[in-house]
Amino acid sequence: MGKVICVGLGPGDPDLMSVKADRLIRSARHVAYFRKAGLTGQARQIVNGMIAEGVAEYPMEYPVTTEIHFSDPEYNRLLSEFYEDWAKRLGDLARDETVVVLCEGDPFFYGSFMHLHSRLQGRAEVEVVPGITGMSGCWTATGMPITWGDDVLTVAMATLPEDELAKRARDTDALVIMKIGRNLPKLRRALAEAGRLDAAWIVERGTMQGQRVQRLTEAEEAPYFSIVVVHGQGRRP
Amino acid sequence: MGKVICVGLGPGDPDLMSVKADRLIRSARHVAYFRKAGLTGQARQIVNGMIAEGVAEYPMEYPVTTEIHFSDPEYNRLLSEFYEDWAKRLGDLARDETVVVLCEGDPFFYGSFMHLHSRLQGRAEVEVVPGITGMSGCWTATGMPITWGDDVLTVAMATLPEDELAKRARDTDALVIMKIGRNLPKLRRALAEAGRLDAAWIVERGTMQGQRVQRLTEAEEAPYFSIVVVHGQGRRP
Ligand SMILES: C[S@@+](CC[C@H](N)C(=O)[O-])C[C@H]1O[C@@H](n2cnc3c(N)ncnc32)[C@H](O)[C@@H]1O
Ligand SMILES: C[S@@+](CC[C@H](N)C(=O)[O-])C[C@H]1O[C@@H](n2cnc3c(N)ncnc32)[C@H](O)[C@@H]1O
Repeated sequence: MGKVICVGLGPGDPDLMSVKADRLIRSARHVAYFRKAGLTGQARQIVNGMIAEGVAEYPMEYPVTTEIHFSDPEYNRLLSEFYEDWAKRLGDLARDETVVVLCEGDPFFYGSFMHLHSRLQGRAEVEVVPGITGMSGCWTATGMPITWGDDVLTVAMATLPEDELAKRARDTDALVIMKIGRNLPKLRRALAEAGRLDAAWIVERGTMQGQRVQRLTEAEEAPYFSIVVVHGQGRRP
Repeated sequence: MGKVICVGLGPGDPDLMSVKADRLIRSARHVAYFRKAGLTGQARQIVNGMIAEGVAEYPMEYPVTTEIHFSDPEYNRLLSEFYEDWAKRLGDLARDETVVVLCEGDPFFYGSFMHLHSRLQGRAEVEVVPGITGMSGCWTATGMPITWGDDVLTVAMATLPEDELAKRARDTDALVIMKIGRNLPKLRRALAEAGRLDAAWIVERGTMQGQRVQRLTEAEEAPYFSIVVVHGQGRRP
């Protein structure tokens, strides 16, 4: 009797993986991970050098990432089929073997594994190991605390409409924005409207090689791995 | 030339500490941590058995915790003096030695170390190692993802006024509430007003010995280490 263990890898620096994740990955015999077709994939990259000789690898290649908009029913159909297919394969494998699934950051925090997790219920035993989130890696990289006292923290995706982003930015103490990429100009307008643009920082590739921390006003683009942070200014004795 | 390194310990299970934290703690010669006077302190407890023989320990005992309300100027004065005093002591020590400061969860996320961090600027080199937050440990313990798709996550403290809590609960997809304790009845009323009480879970001592996961409607009390979670229900292919 095996199981599926989804392991949070943390923000990118392998040294920030948990002791448990490190041990599970080094002793795994079957390792699965998501990636964009044709690329190594960030999750696989983080564990480079940690996977033993002869281990079976299962790269799960997204059938679509940003080529089709997520509001298109075709996007949904393709992804649903993809998750269904892999849930079946990993579930079958887990009848006899333990499979480690690699996941950036913390799996239950906007992670892709959740779509396998729900489909694996009743098919296999599943365990999830939390990890340091990308946002923790990013606010630590800014050298300033994100929240003090009873600050409210809002986490939102830059994929939301501009007015919604502006409202969220206005109505919170501390703010974290993820999934930026091509939404950067919209996000910048929203933060300006909310009067919070000048206090915003952008962290690219937090804790990874090539990490960059800048004021958002200075950023020209935002790669997939980037996060915008506005620090809270709450109570401090 | 030494420095002050604040190390995030994660939610409680020592196995969830980062590889870096584990290494820094095992090799430390000077270890400082906050605690309530007379108690071992959660941070110190997490590293039990990891601290080498002959290491110098610096328990930093809060002069006050909940005996005086935080709106009382006396509370502020006492705490400010306390942080000032320890910033000076650790800063002096860091002239020649490296001091590891233990911090539950992620230090820059509502952590007490932030009050030393600001006061150590210009006095000592300071490094912060992020950790898995208590909330990640808690939502993982519920066995359900906290956020999907473009869900908005709000993190708020139960110390906020009831109407503010109700508004926050109404106006978000996913919700995390910390610092509950004696605010439990108020928090429960606020969630009921917002129509979210039935979907709320409370996790006590997430990932620690004695962990308990219950529906919030069933909880009779909330110890210091407890977190309330309402999961997001966002887009899922
Ligand atoms: C699908 S979400 C996955 C989040 C992940 N499960 C976590 O806990 O951080 C992907 C988004 O995470 C953010 N992200 C994750 N790690 C990051 C890092 N090290 N640096 C910058 N952004 C990161 C980016 O905003 C990216 O668009
Ligand atoms: C001063 S804050 C410190 C937060 C910490 N820096 C973190 O990253 O989680 C203390 C609050 O964290 C929450 N907390 C932290 N770890 C927890 C755990 N393992 N289980 C339940 N609650 C926890 C509780 O709500 C507690 O009142």
